[in-house]
Amino acid sequence: MTTAIVNVFLKEGVLDPQGKAAHHALDSLGFEGVKDVRIGKQIVLQLDTDKEKAEQEVKEMCETLLANTVIEDYSIEIR
Amino acid sequence: MTTAIVNVFLKEGVLDPQGKAAHHALDSLGFEGVKDVRIGKQIVLQLDTDKEKAEQEVKEMCETLLANTVIEDYSIEIR
Repeated sequence: MTTAIVNVFLKEGVLDPQGKAAHHALDSLGFEGVKDVRIGKQIVLQLDTDKEKAEQEVKEMCETLLANTVIEDYSIEIR
Repeated sequence: MTTAIVNVFLKEGVLDPQGKAAHHALDSLGFEGVKDVRIGKQIVLQLDTDKEKAEQEVKEMCETLLANTVIEDYSIEIR
């Protein structure tokens, strides 16, 4: 069993309203020193393929479904 | 500047409808060998505090705002 961890984040320069909201809420709660908050998705896949095939397969999954590559970047980690 | 990476995931046994939907979609697209998909949040914080203080502060942020500890677990990585 192979575990693939995909992190999907909005590209630099794309407004992140969820992160902005969390940032404001942290300020309101009195947490000082927070300069920036960005919120992305972490997708953990359990795959029944070997590690060599997994990376290419997960890349295809990201391109077709898991990430919106117009506004999002992704990184893949195979364990 | 300290970077804190928080991963927030639904606890084991808590239904993950977003992950289930992605799993079904991957099946429909012909990706075989996917056994499980879990989707969580990754929150990246830029903090103006030193690394020692950061971990405790981020833990408080998780407990009060970033995670719903009834149904979610979180992990903190300080860089």
